[in-house]
Amino acid sequence: MVKGNGGAVGIAIGKAFVLPDWEWELSDSAVDVNDMAFEFERLHEGVRISKTELQQIKQEIAEVLGVEESNIFDAHLAILEDPVFMNEVAGIIQRQYKAAEVAVKEVVDKFVNMFDLLDDEYMKERALDIKDVGTRLLKHLLGAFEETKPPEDQPFVIVARELTPSQLAHLDSSQLLGIVTATGGKTSHTAIMARAMGIPFVFGIDGGVQTGDMLVVDGESGDVYVNPDEPIVETYRERRQRLAVHRERLQTIVDIPSVTKDGREVNLSANIASLQELEQALKQGAKGVGLFRTEMLYMDGTTWPKENEQFEVYRSAAQKLQGKPLIIRTLDIGGDKQLDYISLPEEENPVLGYRGIRISIDRRDMFKTQLKAILRASEYGNIKILLPMISSVEEVRRAREVLELAMQELRASNVPFNGHVPVGIMIEVPAAVAIADMLAQEVQFFSIGTNDLVQYVLAVDRMNEKISHLYEPYHPAVLRMLKLTVEAASRQGISVSVCGELAGDADALPIWLGLGVHELSMAGQSILDVKSRLIDSSELNGKQLLERLLACRTSAEMKALLHSGGSDASRTAE
Amino acid sequence: MVKGNGGAVGIAIGKAFVLPDWEWELSDSAVDVNDMAFEFERLHEGVRISKTELQQIKQEIAEVLGVEESNIFDAHLAILEDPVFMNEVAGIIQRQYKAAEVAVKEVVDKFVNMFDLLDDEYMKERALDIKDVGTRLLKHLLGAFEETKPPEDQPFVIVARELTPSQLAHLDSSQLLGIVTATGGKTSHTAIMARAMGIPFVFGIDGGVQTGDMLVVDGESGDVYVNPDEPIVETYRERRQRLAVHRERLQTIVDIPSVTKDGREVNLSANIASLQELEQALKQGAKGVGLFRTEMLYMDGTTWPKENEQFEVYRSAAQKLQGKPLIIRTLDIGGDKQLDYISLPEEENPVLGYRGIRISIDRRDMFKTQLKAILRASEYGNIKILLPMISSVEEVRRAREVLELAMQELRASNVPFNGHVPVGIMIEVPAAVAIADMLAQEVQFFSIGTNDLVQYVLAVDRMNEKISHLYEPYHPAVLRMLKLTVEAASRQGISVSVCGELAGDADALPIWLGLGVHELSMAGQSILDVKSRLIDSSELNGKQLLERLLACRTSAEMKALLHSGGSDASRTAE
Repeated sequence: MVKGNGGAVGIAIGKAFVLPDWEWELSDSAVDVNDMAFEFERLHEGVRISKTELQQIKQEIAEVLGVEESNIFDAHLAILEDPVFMNEVAGIIQRQYKAAEVAVKEVVDKFVNMFDLLDDEYMKERALDIKDVGTRLLKHLLGAFEETKPPEDQPFVIVARELTPSQLAHLDSSQLLGIVTATGGKTSHTAIMARAMGIPFVFGIDGGVQTGDMLVVDGESGDVYVNPDEPIVETYRERRQRLAVHRERLQTIVDIPSVTKDGREVNLSANIASLQELEQALKQGAKGVGLFRTEMLYMDGTTWPKENEQFEVYRSAAQKLQGKPLIIRTLDIGGDKQLDYISLPEEENPVLGYRGIRISIDRRDMFKTQLKAILRASEYGNIKILLPMISSVEEVRRAREVLELAMQELRASNVPFNGHVPVGIMIEVPAAVAIADMLAQEVQFFSIGTNDLVQYVLAVDRMNEKISHLYEPYHPAVLRMLKLTVEAASRQGISVSVCGELAGDADALPIWLGLGVHELSMAGQSILDVKSRLIDSSELNGKQLLERLLACRTSAEMKALLHSGGSDASRTAE
Repeated sequence: MVKGNGGAVGIAIGKAFVLPDWEWELSDSAVDVNDMAFEFERLHEGVRISKTELQQIKQEIAEVLGVEESNIFDAHLAILEDPVFMNEVAGIIQRQYKAAEVAVKEVVDKFVNMFDLLDDEYMKERALDIKDVGTRLLKHLLGAFEETKPPEDQPFVIVARELTPSQLAHLDSSQLLGIVTATGGKTSHTAIMARAMGIPFVFGIDGGVQTGDMLVVDGESGDVYVNPDEPIVETYRERRQRLAVHRERLQTIVDIPSVTKDGREVNLSANIASLQELEQALKQGAKGVGLFRTEMLYMDGTTWPKENEQFEVYRSAAQKLQGKPLIIRTLDIGGDKQLDYISLPEEENPVLGYRGIRISIDRRDMFKTQLKAILRASEYGNIKILLPMISSVEEVRRAREVLELAMQELRASNVPFNGHVPVGIMIEVPAAVAIADMLAQEVQFFSIGTNDLVQYVLAVDRMNEKISHLYEPYHPAVLRMLKLTVEAASRQGISVSVCGELAGDADALPIWLGLGVHELSMAGQSILDVKSRLIDSSELNGKQLLERLLACRTSAEMKALLHSGGSDASRTAE
């Protein structure tokens, strides 16, 4: 057994196909001056084919995984269109009389080394992009693109030193069982794609596997077994089977009410980013949309989406929901989410930077356009507006000013809308918790974003692997912040829901029952898991457990207690 | 009057000297093959002179401003030693038969353009470094270094499109009245140096000034007057005079007790980073050291400082303090502070990353060495240990384990130390505030670090100029967090001090008096300002004002109230 890191959950069992490390055999002999035109022709033809291919891949990815994933390839296309890059290549051919592939390799190596030298995570990713494009281009120049393909019509686990998104996209996904790589990370593009494709992925495995080896890949633990004994294969087969059965069993509870044993109903809604996700979520029995992330509408295009484009999407969503609530969060870019057509400042600490409502208040026209689109859609369903990253009363008031303006303009044009559309705020900045009572008087509802809240309360970037062990939602400080928020909302009589990852973590359910949170919004695929736990839970137990959780001084104590379900054995745990 | 941005406070009145934008007149004629060796000789001689010069500048800066400031020039030296950079230059001379200065200029331009293209704040700063070094090298190659010097023996205000730290270092500081530039920023190296040198600095002024113009530069407001009328000059002369008088008047209260009108004593201590700063602080009447930042001990060398080196510094500080408290904060690197000899990960959000106690717990040997040095010094004065970035009870316990280990080792070697040395923690992470009552049972004192606390509570990077208006210490959420902390400490009977910038802001004094904080630690130069306000204040007024501050919903209300000193006029303010 080899130990790696889990990148995308699931169990894969099957034969390995090892992608060879590509070694370029390049002739270094000078090009005859008379052949120079031919080298340029080859270069441009190679670029042309590479671009067509990238566009195709992008298209395919967009269809299978959605537009957001496919945008990864824009960076690649951009490199092929980058005059600095192409001029360097041309210069080497022209001035040093070298063949096109030699020139490409030299420039790629140079840029990769340079970016690597910069010792910057972002630059390293750019280096990988350049390498990926360079490899593609080189293979076309050498006419050697076919060699690294796995055998057709046979399922396989791909094993590679590094697997770029374009290589991944090139593989036959119907035969792809799993992915094992040496390099990579939980937040790499490859990991994101693997998760979106539902394919188990383990990284950090360097060598020890040959094509044809039998592999068992556990994408959760990161364990990879090479040619394991039959009992191990059998164990994993059973586990995979149990997972499948579990998934099937969950389908039987789609239509039953989500109510605890002692009769407390908890609404389980979905977090979505697109209409496709909404349909998926409805199939899982979502009682509404607790969080519509509108960033994707902004990321797809090359400019601000028009009011009408947005309106159509919001209206479709509202109609599909047939009266069930649709909570639309206004644009929450910044942090790790960027738009190509507005140049946000490069920030030292983007998570503590220009993002969410801070941008919307700053760019009132953009914000007003979105609000008008939402208001117009409010005629077609049960729509609410959610403001992200609120940290003060002033921000709420300033956002409401823009909303008022949007309403005035619609009224002036005789466009119908719901004049009493409820406005709520994300509770994700510690300041919002500290003044939750004041904020509760300014808005109609709260939605707790546990992901950001945890990271700000603990001062831990959850994407930073060096300190990932410190990103701990089950922390006494977090629990108290949650309690403060719920109490403030309840005193003011406004509703409060939870929409961070913790909402979709069935282990956290007693906390919500104990606190009296009756609305949870989560990824569509978590709804049935949480529901299955919910119908076996009781509110009373949640309240009792919460009292004891509040007395815990450490995360370890909290988790032991939650794990034991409050049985007395845990009292001694620490 | 031209409006710029204040980069370093103070008022400068004097003649402008405008640094010309250097335009290189380079011959593009090819170098004869026989002269190539000469070009290389010139190049290497230019590099050698540039390096000697940079080392000299570095030395001078270290003496005048301290080692930390001088390290800016290491980046410049590194460029001259960078094989990538030098190989590119050599390649152009050799393959393209160009003169050394032409080759240098081409490579500098290329790198600068490339780094600029990357559109990254860090890279842009690197681009400026390369440009600065390139200019230096070019000027030597062209033998034209003298031309841009201001006339000697005359005071002047330097005006430039951009002023690099090495240019600044080159100016005669005894004649330098002020600095005005087009580019730059509050956190640029130039701004840091200007503040350290006590020279007024305004940036964002592009053009409109000629050598010989009379200038009035207000480094606080960013206002620059060009050839103003005499009344304006007179006004500023008076202001400058008032500032000087104010500074003199403050010297008269150095030795009087820091007690409010109604008899409440408040200890005013100093934040220091070196023994020199300690001496300065004692001259200002510091009642001890509330925060000894030990990072500088680690930044000076090329490897971890030895136990003995550290011990000597801590002991000297303790002895200089003659029994007054010396609170030593254990190493707080990470975030924006790096060490050359340990490779910290490049982080997307360093402020939320691997820093402070997180590193110390991870590198127990390094931590233990520091604790042993502090323990040994504890024999020589009133030393306390302060742990940074604490966010959980577990972290305190883990740090205490290492302390216990350090004590065991000293005992085993019969080295004397104070076995009851008090241990405290920084309260700067929101989680620490939320569980302050639990933490208060684990330690002997709290020190509130308002800078980080404000930035975490509000999720605002205080170095980020795009959102600097959101970095607001006078925020209802911050005030409540402060109150929670002080109450938790007081219930447990442990002491609490404040050591962030807010402690040195005289306007905040009523808050501390109201909350019952009787220990403030601040930059040495703020002590007398705060003291002068303190002896005119009353605790009773602080308590009354605090009640009303706690009812404020916005920062604007809070600031209006503080500004009015609580007079009723402010009740209408919002």
